[in-house]
Amino acid sequence: MLKQSSQALGSCHIVITGGAGFLGVRLARTLLAQGQLSLAGAAPANIARITLVDRAAPPADLLADARVTALSGDLNALLEEKNPLATVIAQDTAIVFHLAAAVSGECEADFDLGMRSNFAATLALLEACRALKTKPVVVFASSLAVFGDAPGQALPPAIEDNTLPTPQSSYGIQKFIGEQLVADYTRKGFIVGRNVRLMTVSVRPGTPNGAASSFLSGMIREPLAGVKASCPVTPDTPVALSSPARTVQGLIRAAEASDPAWGPRTGLNLPALTTTPGEMAAALERVAGPAATALIDWTPDPAIRNIVKTWPARIHAVRAGGLGLLPEESFEDIIREYIRGNPYAVKLPVR
Amino acid sequence: MLKQSSQALGSCHIVITGGAGFLGVRLARTLLAQGQLSLAGAAPANIARITLVDRAAPPADLLADARVTALSGDLNALLEEKNPLATVIAQDTAIVFHLAAAVSGECEADFDLGMRSNFAATLALLEACRALKTKPVVVFASSLAVFGDAPGQALPPAIEDNTLPTPQSSYGIQKFIGEQLVADYTRKGFIVGRNVRLMTVSVRPGTPNGAASSFLSGMIREPLAGVKASCPVTPDTPVALSSPARTVQGLIRAAEASDPAWGPRTGLNLPALTTTPGEMAAALERVAGPAATALIDWTPDPAIRNIVKTWPARIHAVRAGGLGLLPEESFEDIIREYIRGNPYAVKLPVR
Repeated sequence: MLKQSSQALGSCHIVITGGAGFLGVRLARTLLAQGQLSLAGAAPANIARITLVDRAAPPADLLADARVTALSGDLNALLEEKNPLATVIAQDTAIVFHLAAAVSGECEADFDLGMRSNFAATLALLEACRALKTKPVVVFASSLAVFGDAPGQALPPAIEDNTLPTPQSSYGIQKFIGEQLVADYTRKGFIVGRNVRLMTVSVRPGTPNGAASSFLSGMIREPLAGVKASCPVTPDTPVALSSPARTVQGLIRAAEASDPAWGPRTGLNLPALTTTPGEMAAALERVAGPAATALIDWTPDPAIRNIVKTWPARIHAVRAGGLGLLPEESFEDIIREYIRGNPYAVKLPVR
Repeated sequence: MLKQSSQALGSCHIVITGGAGFLGVRLARTLLAQGQLSLAGAAPANIARITLVDRAAPPADLLADARVTALSGDLNALLEEKNPLATVIAQDTAIVFHLAAAVSGECEADFDLGMRSNFAATLALLEACRALKTKPVVVFASSLAVFGDAPGQALPPAIEDNTLPTPQSSYGIQKFIGEQLVADYTRKGFIVGRNVRLMTVSVRPGTPNGAASSFLSGMIREPLAGVKASCPVTPDTPVALSSPARTVQGLIRAAEASDPAWGPRTGLNLPALTTTPGEMAAALERVAGPAATALIDWTPDPAIRNIVKTWPARIHAVRAGGLGLLPEESFEDIIREYIRGNPYAVKLPVR
């Protein structure tokens, strides 16, 4: 009976750039588990194939799924590739989640790298989608980094849906340009574009990544593993965070929402929980006791503090709320979600 | 004495792309007449050379000036040119006014043309400026077209300095992307960039140009020449206009303002006079009598009305005001300025 109704559905081929990264892997696992995806308000389609495009190979569980194809290499090079076996955007591509990007620090240190990885690659990807002439859905992972506080141009107390982005990094500029391209390719009918601005994700599993925001995961993840961690800002510094689960939920909601439900082509700010490192440590202590919080070193680092204070800390995500996308209610919930999802990374006893 | 003090000054080489166009010619004439230019708050420098880059040849009066060089051809092709005689951005370039662009209608009809002329050319120009390693000033002529009224995303009653642009045309998107590039090249110290959003200019001399806004000049220019003209919108339709003189003043002020005076890297909205075709016709009648206004045909054109009504009609240009840039006080002043500047184009007696 289930099989019969499934056969009546269409099927779809999903492409995820950055598909071996932290969010790409989590998105792929979520999509494979749900088995179906509704594209921009259409009836659900069976997920027949997911192509994960990345420099790195995806984890074994994804490769073991018969629906998964891995395409390894540099995205710019792959998009120029004429070999049909290495086509990023095959003719049957129904939807692309474009997550691949050089990160903020890299783009600041190497301007040309950022222009190539974030700007030229996005344009080439959009051109490949346009060439299909099938109007695929493109979910573009933009970033909170489009907002930045600058001298003479202070951010408002809370970011509203129509707050003017004033990027203060090359990464933020490149993401904001990507949004404009996606908006116009959508308006022209070349694609069905969805610009989604991702928040700082915490708790990220794995190892520190060198980003200025890395401590916002590390100060929870490392103590839970019985390892020392540092928080380089004062405990009362406001920060805006989203859990990995809510972030992936936002990407999928962007793919599934109909045009009228989605609304304007302007980037959608995902919701975020406003908290502070002090509140985060208190939540950690409730979950894993003082043995955990004793592992946090609170020595301030002025360089990191100066970066963090330019980030918006309050997101008034009305539009996201209308799509059913809400922030986590407490950081304690986020810690417990991390523990459930990463049991082997937790060494301290938790309550 | 004057000569002596002039010799003590530095000298500068100015490049104007779109230098044979209506605004480029007017800008060049104004700069040649004033003889000097202060660059981003520095002491005034003598204008030693102006290179006018355009597909078309500049008018004879400009070519006759020993300080003027014309470089003719397609801007994208010229920027790729290795021949040193065809270098757009020579090593001694102190400032570029980047006015060259494919216009709105062209970009909407031919997407690839717009991406090439407005987007790729701007990026190539910025790369050429960066390669100088001398941090030239770049005044980028952006446009009111970055603002557009769309379903679900209405414009506010007046455009403020920090109103979020939501371009509703490829031209507007390309201009807004250009602003982002100029902002980041400036932040990185590759150039000293100035993003200036030009308003609809009226009264443009010459002939109708096929733009939807063409009637806003034609309904004055043609009757003054004793020729019939049409106004395709109702007399009470609010429109925001700037005279050619104020527009050129804005470009020069952008070049001369110091960094602190200029302020944020976000595009600066030039001031505009809010008026209506009805008020414009009344002003024309005060200047040239009922014989002029009798030549205006008020038959509405729904297609043009639907475009015009998506344009912002009120610009609250506080930042421009702080730089001494103010709108004309009346449309009658604008008509009289046109008549003074274009005496041979006026056939009716004026008061």
